Amino acid sequence: MAVSWEESVTNSINTIYLLFSAYLVFVMQLGFAMLCAGSVRAKNTTNIMLTNVVDAVVGSISYYLFGFAFAFGAGLDSNPFIGSSFFALNNIPNDTYDYTFFLYQWAFAIAVAGITSGSIAERTQFGAYLVFSFFLTGFVYPVVAHWVWSSSGWLSPSGHGLLFGSGAIDFAGSGVVHLVGGVAGLWGAYIEGPRVGRFNAFGQPVPMRGHSATLVVLGTFLLWFGWFGFNPGSFDKILVAYPNTTNQGNWTGVGRTAVTTTLAGSASGIVTLFIRRILVGHWDALDVCNGVLAGFVAITSGCSVVEPWAAIICGCFAACVLIGLNILALKLNFDDPLEATQLHGGCGAWGLLFTGLFAKEKFVVQAYNSGAIDVSRPYGLLMGGGWGLFGAQLVEVLVIVGWVSLTMGPLFYVLHKLKILRISVKDEMAGLDISSHGGYAYVANHDENNHQFYANYVRMQDE
Amino acid sequence: MAVSWEESVTNSINTIYLLFSAYLVFVMQLGFAMLCAGSVRAKNTTNIMLTNVVDAVVGSISYYLFGFAFAFGAGLDSNPFIGSSFFALNNIPNDTYDYTFFLYQWAFAIAVAGITSGSIAERTQFGAYLVFSFFLTGFVYPVVAHWVWSSSGWLSPSGHGLLFGSGAIDFAGSGVVHLVGGVAGLWGAYIEGPRVGRFNAFGQPVPMRGHSATLVVLGTFLLWFGWFGFNPGSFDKILVAYPNTTNQGNWTGVGRTAVTTTLAGSASGIVTLFIRRILVGHWDALDVCNGVLAGFVAITSGCSVVEPWAAIICGCFAACVLIGLNILALKLNFDDPLEATQLHGGCGAWGLLFTGLFAKEKFVVQAYNSGAIDVSRPYGLLMGGGWGLFGAQLVEVLVIVGWVSLTMGPLFYVLHKLKILRISVKDEMAGLDISSHGGYAYVANHDENNHQFYANYVRMQDE
Amino acid sequence: MAVSWEESVTNSINTIYLLFSAYLVFVMQLGFAMLCAGSVRAKNTTNIMLTNVVDAVVGSISYYLFGFAFAFGAGLDSNPFIGSSFFALNNIPNDTYDYTFFLYQWAFAIAVAGITSGSIAERTQFGAYLVFSFFLTGFVYPVVAHWVWSSSGWLSPSGHGLLFGSGAIDFAGSGVVHLVGGVAGLWGAYIEGPRVGRFNAFGQPVPMRGHSATLVVLGTFLLWFGWFGFNPGSFDKILVAYPNTTNQGNWTGVGRTAVTTTLAGSASGIVTLFIRRILVGHWDALDVCNGVLAGFVAITSGCSVVEPWAAIICGCFAACVLIGLNILALKLNFDDPLEATQLHGGCGAWGLLFTGLFAKEKFVVQAYNSGAIDVSRPYGLLMGGGWGLFGAQLVEVLVIVGWVSLTMGPLFYVLHKLKILRISVKDEMAGLDISSHGGYAYVANHDENNHQFYANYVRMQDE
Repeated sequence: MAVSWEESVTNSINTIYLLFSAYLVFVMQLGFAMLCAGSVRAKNTTNIMLTNVVDAVVGSISYYLFGFAFAFGAGLDSNPFIGSSFFALNNIPNDTYDYTFFLYQWAFAIAVAGITSGSIAERTQFGAYLVFSFFLTGFVYPVVAHWVWSSSGWLSPSGHGLLFGSGAIDFAGSGVVHLVGGVAGLWGAYIEGPRVGRFNAFGQPVPMRGHSATLVVLGTFLLWFGWFGFNPGSFDKILVAYPNTTNQGNWTGVGRTAVTTTLAGSASGIVTLFIRRILVGHWDALDVCNGVLAGFVAITSGCSVVEPWAAIICGCFAACVLIGLNILALKLNFDDPLEATQLHGGCGAWGLLFTGLFAKEKFVVQAYNSGAIDVSRPYGLLMGGGWGLFGAQLVEVLVIVGWVSLTMGPLFYVLHKLKILRISVKDEMAGLDISSHGGYAYVANHDENNHQFYANYVRMQDE
Repeated sequence: MAVSWEESVTNSINTIYLLFSAYLVFVMQLGFAMLCAGSVRAKNTTNIMLTNVVDAVVGSISYYLFGFAFAFGAGLDSNPFIGSSFFALNNIPNDTYDYTFFLYQWAFAIAVAGITSGSIAERTQFGAYLVFSFFLTGFVYPVVAHWVWSSSGWLSPSGHGLLFGSGAIDFAGSGVVHLVGGVAGLWGAYIEGPRVGRFNAFGQPVPMRGHSATLVVLGTFLLWFGWFGFNPGSFDKILVAYPNTTNQGNWTGVGRTAVTTTLAGSASGIVTLFIRRILVGHWDALDVCNGVLAGFVAITSGCSVVEPWAAIICGCFAACVLIGLNILALKLNFDDPLEATQLHGGCGAWGLLFTGLFAKEKFVVQAYNSGAIDVSRPYGLLMGGGWGLFGAQLVEVLVIVGWVSLTMGPLFYVLHKLKILRISVKDEMAGLDISSHGGYAYVANHDENNHQFYANYVRMQDE
Repeated sequence: MAVSWEESVTNSINTIYLLFSAYLVFVMQLGFAMLCAGSVRAKNTTNIMLTNVVDAVVGSISYYLFGFAFAFGAGLDSNPFIGSSFFALNNIPNDTYDYTFFLYQWAFAIAVAGITSGSIAERTQFGAYLVFSFFLTGFVYPVVAHWVWSSSGWLSPSGHGLLFGSGAIDFAGSGVVHLVGGVAGLWGAYIEGPRVGRFNAFGQPVPMRGHSATLVVLGTFLLWFGWFGFNPGSFDKILVAYPNTTNQGNWTGVGRTAVTTTLAGSASGIVTLFIRRILVGHWDALDVCNGVLAGFVAITSGCSVVEPWAAIICGCFAACVLIGLNILALKLNFDDPLEATQLHGGCGAWGLLFTGLFAKEKFVVQAYNSGAIDVSRPYGLLMGGGWGLFGAQLVEVLVIVGWVSLTMGPLFYVLHKLKILRISVKDEMAGLDISSHGGYAYVANHDENNHQFYANYVRMQDE
């Protein structure tokens, strides 16, 4: 019953690694809040930030009560579709999962609704938001997580009976997190329709700038910081040596994953900078920010199994996917204030396919079989690894689009039909902050009858 | 004299753990700065942020010179009331303390004055702030820390001769940090009196909104992030195995502490959301932010020794404590701009009592006796652990209220009598930034004769 | 070929340590962005933030392709002046460097251009910025890093054939990073000349306040947070025991480095607070922020090899250096909007000399010879360690000033002569955001015809 020193060291090291990674992933919630706040008009700032806070606090309770159980529940009652144990952390810790793993997964879960909140920003009733956030974080997302990340999931790359002999490789969740959030956002934004005034009578877009570029940049950098927890952290354990190597192990894979993440986001940012310079004639900071995020979303699936040079390719295409989908969205009069559908949905799907093309055999075996030397499994199509992996990746894209559409689509539709989804035009003109949250987010100096002239006047009197 | 490999590994692991936790606790200083800035009117923004910077820089020097010595000084000169060695880090590192432990405790020390700065915001002379901050961080707080956290302290739960056979369990400082800061704020705010215009001639409150909800949310999330260092980090060492378990140790306790912290804050946030919705008729984001913090403050005492379900109970009551005290404060015409007295004081006291009610025996023994199998000690009253712990918790509440009142109360009173505590009414109307700090925090575009119309005009001339 | 358990543990611990330190250093990029944004006028906010984003994304690709190779390339082709292997991470990982080391160094590289961007803020063409940032991050900086930080560098304190038997001690880069960035900024700001209106016809300075003190404080605290990765992280490995000690090793040095960093910044902040109070008559928050940073820049060179009390001396003088140089700059009509030349250049140079004066022998041997008991080498002049170290420090100052002047000076001059360096006066009056980046950073409520009165009006109509 005693814990050996080797076990203590191993547990301590892996816990530190996963715990601080979880903290970083949590920072993404703040990143989303700032990015979203900066991207909406000032009159809706408080509303969008409150949705991010609510995602976190409601998500904590729902993920504790049943979300984690749906995602990672194992044992006799488990099945490839949905987990059914560990409700309310019952039987945690056990030999497989400790509290830290729960915390890490919780930080992922609350991020999903944050993605979708961007799509339906500036026009959604807060009550409807509570319903949708609870349903998405507590049920729709955990089920997908179970498919791909639980060893008993039917799409898992590490359990028994792998799909196409491979299973889908979605290391940190281009599909499980971002595509899920993006597709949910697609249906929300589509059913709600564009914001008032977003397109004119001729269907042409009217610019609707967010109120603070500073907050957008702040949010983007915080998301970058958080992504270092999201992607490299998804190894879960760092103390795993690779046999038949000199001094390599998960510590190598972890470092490489941080590098591929950085390179993909950077490449995407640069490509966006120049393409948008050509398209719109100026250097657009906000586009670059979204471009960087596009690269991160895309590399999230394959970050641990591709070479750094491939990550650069991933990022370059991600930028093109985002720019192309944004043009398409405008043509279709589709209004997603944060471009979340295009960014998280589009680049999430691209990321899954990219992994199917560029995954390197050695890295796949290291990430999913601890580098075992006698394992052979499908890998990237363009790397000579056959169709098995690419097929599984394609299946993941399709089933996520299907599953989220079948669950979130009807939910938004029912809320819409009940007239509790969208706010009234007058409230939308006035802004959500004044109509639903008690006042604007900002109170300027001159609103307080104390601006500089007055102040100087008062002081002069005083002297 | 050589350091063995086992010692090296142990020291490295524990140092990494504590060091990065210290960095997170430091982030709370930034969190307080942003929360406070957003909660005051624009004209006092620079002032309140400078107080937070000053807490950190003055606190560094005073805690280095004598604060740490008062708190953790040991040896022959030590006594249960105040420490008296390790001045200016003399004799550090030694077998008990290394530099990292000092850094971790430093990050706690500077947080205390930050709490109080909220209570006396928008009306305090900066010179008085320097005096109060120096005295609180350098003397009043370290003494309380010595009582509870030094093994020679008379309230300590881990030394010899435990009070009521138990000692007080204040794991990360609901009492030592938050109640101390809150009681100091209570006296400061009471002696200074309300801000000009906060209550009308009939004693009814006049809304005085902070100038930026964005900063409030930013600060709240940063505090949440930092609390992951504050609570789980307080184990100090992660590489401690629990005998008689399968694979459990402080790494388990650390993870559970992060989970209880998250759940308490989340529960408190949700309860606040709905109660305030009922009371004021809208979804109030700022109240939810303070609600989340209320849960964190309350769980800080018992975070390591209660079950996750109990943390939810802790948070629900914390929300009620905060809401109730806020109503009471308005009735009494007590004006604390950040609600710091109610939040850190009220919920800090509740947290201490909560621990006395819900602490679980197994967790208490793990946290304070490294899980030793032959130890029996008092634990939560409602868990069947008798009155010993609850009594010690109650004593901690009372002595902190007494000690801080007897030290900080007279200090504020003397400053008040010397007329160097509060600024003049005219300066208060003008704002502290213009009267004491050289100018407003913000300079808008249109104050620079370069707003958009002008810009376009200039450019048209140019073409 | 198998990796032993001891190797696995060692690699895991050191990787966690360096990886999370790298993440913190990355946060400094966000810190710079916020600090710069707050310190410029609102009309140039987007521009300065975009330069910080571009530093990161362009720097990622250039440092991956060749910057890292120039800095740390080793092997037969290597020489004391410039490295020439590991292009595009070829042959990484190897026995010396793993991916994590690259990531850590990348985070340093992108910081350099961020320093310089402050000096040339509010008046530089974005195209010129791209050229300069690419050249500085990809070539000028890596070469200096090779001299000092690569074991084959001619200024290195840890290779063979040490300069003056000592080599220069620039532990985390007061010279390699800050002096390089500062000198580049000096030439940029000098060649561009002051901003329009910065000095009047009589050569007297006209105040040109940044637009947000909040962002300045946010940036300062984020930089402080990031500096905990910058300085203590530069040990690279934490699991190194010091022979002939009781229980000490790099974990001790790491903690002490965090403490010296904190004390230097704090001392500098306090000194700045009071000196500026005397000079300008008010408590200036922004000066204190820059004062804190001055202390950090100065201690960066010697952080690991000096006693805590010496760090306080370092900070006190750093404050004086910054204040003095700022007065001098105004007299010379030199306009550096962020004071980057004075702060990073001046205090960086002071930091190098300080190390030559106060380095303690025991700590030097611990930091650079793993505490070997039979090593004797030059150390601080005032500590009795002779002129060897001080001479090497002085040489580092001189060669950095020379090298950066000879490379960046001509580059800025050519850009200037080609008339692609500075924007037109009309664009400068209008602001870079509207002239080059598609619009202002902020859109206020009242610019959207929806301010509070209107909102209330609409709502009243509705009821």
